Amino acid sequence: MLRITSPCVKGGLCPATHFMENFLAIVVPFDDKRDPGAKPSIEALYQLVTDDLARVNEAILRHMESPVRLIPQLAGHIIAAGGKRLRPMLLLGAARLCGYRGQRHTGLAAAVEFIHTATLLHDDVVDDSDLRRGMATANNVWGNKPSVLVGDFLFSRSFQLMVSDGSLDVLAILSNASAVIAEGEVLQLTTANDTETSEAAYLEVITSKTATLFAAATRLGAVVAGRPKVEEEALHAFGLNLGIAFQLTDDVMDYASGAETMGKETGDDFREGKVTLPVIFAFRRGDDQERAFWQRTIENLAQDEGDLEKAIGLMTRHNALADSLERARHYTQLAHDALDIFPDSDIRRALLDVVAFCAARTY
Amino acid sequence: MLRITSPCVKGGLCPATHFMENFLAIVVPFDDKRDPGAKPSIEALYQLVTDDLARVNEAILRHMESPVRLIPQLAGHIIAAGGKRLRPMLLLGAARLCGYRGQRHTGLAAAVEFIHTATLLHDDVVDDSDLRRGMATANNVWGNKPSVLVGDFLFSRSFQLMVSDGSLDVLAILSNASAVIAEGEVLQLTTANDTETSEAAYLEVITSKTATLFAAATRLGAVVAGRPKVEEEALHAFGLNLGIAFQLTDDVMDYASGAETMGKETGDDFREGKVTLPVIFAFRRGDDQERAFWQRTIENLAQDEGDLEKAIGLMTRHNALADSLERARHYTQLAHDALDIFPDSDIRRALLDVVAFCAARTY
Repeated sequence: MLRITSPCVKGGLCPATHFMENFLAIVVPFDDKRDPGAKPSIEALYQLVTDDLARVNEAILRHMESPVRLIPQLAGHIIAAGGKRLRPMLLLGAARLCGYRGQRHTGLAAAVEFIHTATLLHDDVVDDSDLRRGMATANNVWGNKPSVLVGDFLFSRSFQLMVSDGSLDVLAILSNASAVIAEGEVLQLTTANDTETSEAAYLEVITSKTATLFAAATRLGAVVAGRPKVEEEALHAFGLNLGIAFQLTDDVMDYASGAETMGKETGDDFREGKVTLPVIFAFRRGDDQERAFWQRTIENLAQDEGDLEKAIGLMTRHNALADSLERARHYTQLAHDALDIFPDSDIRRALLDVVAFCAARTY
Repeated sequence: MLRITSPCVKGGLCPATHFMENFLAIVVPFDDKRDPGAKPSIEALYQLVTDDLARVNEAILRHMESPVRLIPQLAGHIIAAGGKRLRPMLLLGAARLCGYRGQRHTGLAAAVEFIHTATLLHDDVVDDSDLRRGMATANNVWGNKPSVLVGDFLFSRSFQLMVSDGSLDVLAILSNASAVIAEGEVLQLTTANDTETSEAAYLEVITSKTATLFAAATRLGAVVAGRPKVEEEALHAFGLNLGIAFQLTDDVMDYASGAETMGKETGDDFREGKVTLPVIFAFRRGDDQERAFWQRTIENLAQDEGDLEKAIGLMTRHNALADSLERARHYTQLAHDALDIFPDSDIRRALLDVVAFCAARTY
């Protein structure tokens, strides 16, 4: 069986913003302490964009303010909940790769994080999730209603940020991405609990709901820098394939990592009956008896004690986890190769390190 | 007691789009048959903008398309459910008042209707509503999850429509409106079931969640026509005050109209414990025993047979419904006066008729 560890989240990767405590309605406990032993491979990127990332965090805190106190309370809960700020960092890194020297990228990185956060809030409602990154979800603490509405607020705020940026190109990229994300979320609903979902349908879901925002974020780096279309497209391909690989490994980790390291509890997807690639492989490679097991547990959600362990056992027997990671490796390779047109530099190496991190974090 | 009739919705006010049946995934049964006896006072506006409105409906149908079939199915259900298209018609009417001769207004009217529809979908989830305009709500038919996600999709689509329009001024107006609407929705949640809600807090909620989109719609008429700021502001004031009056009368009708005429069932707000102006008046003007009644029914939602009738009785005794309508009349007067700077014309008279309709539909 695969031995899976996760070196990424533990240390907390967001700069301290304690100086903002007095000026903000809520205290967002960003933690600047890094664990030197963890050596996450997104560290190099983090070091290169750290000043910009501090500005992104300031923008996030400033723009989630509202006289309606519940909004910053609830938004702060999820935004401060130890997220890696991976999408903003990728946007900042892509802009740096393109030689960008202005200030537009930080506001846009905040807009991207708001879209991501709005999606998470609605996702947790749709999935009835209780935990995210090891903390109670907003819907768990405040209920579904505020989660839906604060999600709407953050989504609107992200568009206000884009409008204040003033570029229709940027607005087109992010409004298109938002529509595709929503489409992917609905598609995921219609394939939920269906063990006969094809690998192609699964790929379409994760491309829409996860990879599209990665692609928009990295593409925007080239857009703000005013770089030629070929670089825009290269960075789009980089983000898209990285996003697919990221989600594939995430779906594998659900059957292999521990709650104490990832926040995400092992077996969340299983309990919710999500049909991810490991399930698709195990179902298709199984015999009739095994398929009956998947139908009972995933389609009918009739799960007993020990079923998760049995599911992991079947996946191991059929190489479902290892082969899912092989698929992920294919996409990390595509992401890696997408940066070939850029000359070697610190930031290019740092972005390639993120690719390595996405591949390495699961084994 | 007030005798309240509603001349507005019955006939269906949207032009037939049967010609689109073959090209669309779903059939949206817009009904062109008007009831000549009903004489709704939005009729004059409808007649003047009817060609443009047909284009709006085409745009709505075209842009709610998606390869994910559940999206047009669910969106079509609510979009076709007999809505008056009041916001699009107001935008079209305002543009005409400003002498606009282009084609941008129809796409923007569709964008406004999408924002409105997304809000309705999320509202019905948040309120656990089963019926809207006499039809089963989308969350009732498909469940909460698709309603949340298709709402997100329509919201994204509205921004795509705005981006394709290409004006940052338009984007600023509608993204600001969207954020204010979401803020108003959250504020309403925090005042829900609180009988001590002040009239001012109530007014803030309805201004944010209802009137802001009316104001954005009418303002856009002046914006697309490139008219001076003073006309933009006049049309903003027109829409804002009309929207407040509209919501105030809507809240009164909840205690006075019949499900057979309005779609909305009498007592919906009461059953959900919504603190609207009639409740605020009756609570504040009542004695201790009456306040205990309101606390039991509205705060604790412990409602028995006959409680709705008792609530209406208390409201009547304290003039709560009549005085709420007096407040509405104040705002209809403001809306009326906002058009003073425009010379007399068919379209100005038609817009003033809409004001009269909003005032008259409840008595």
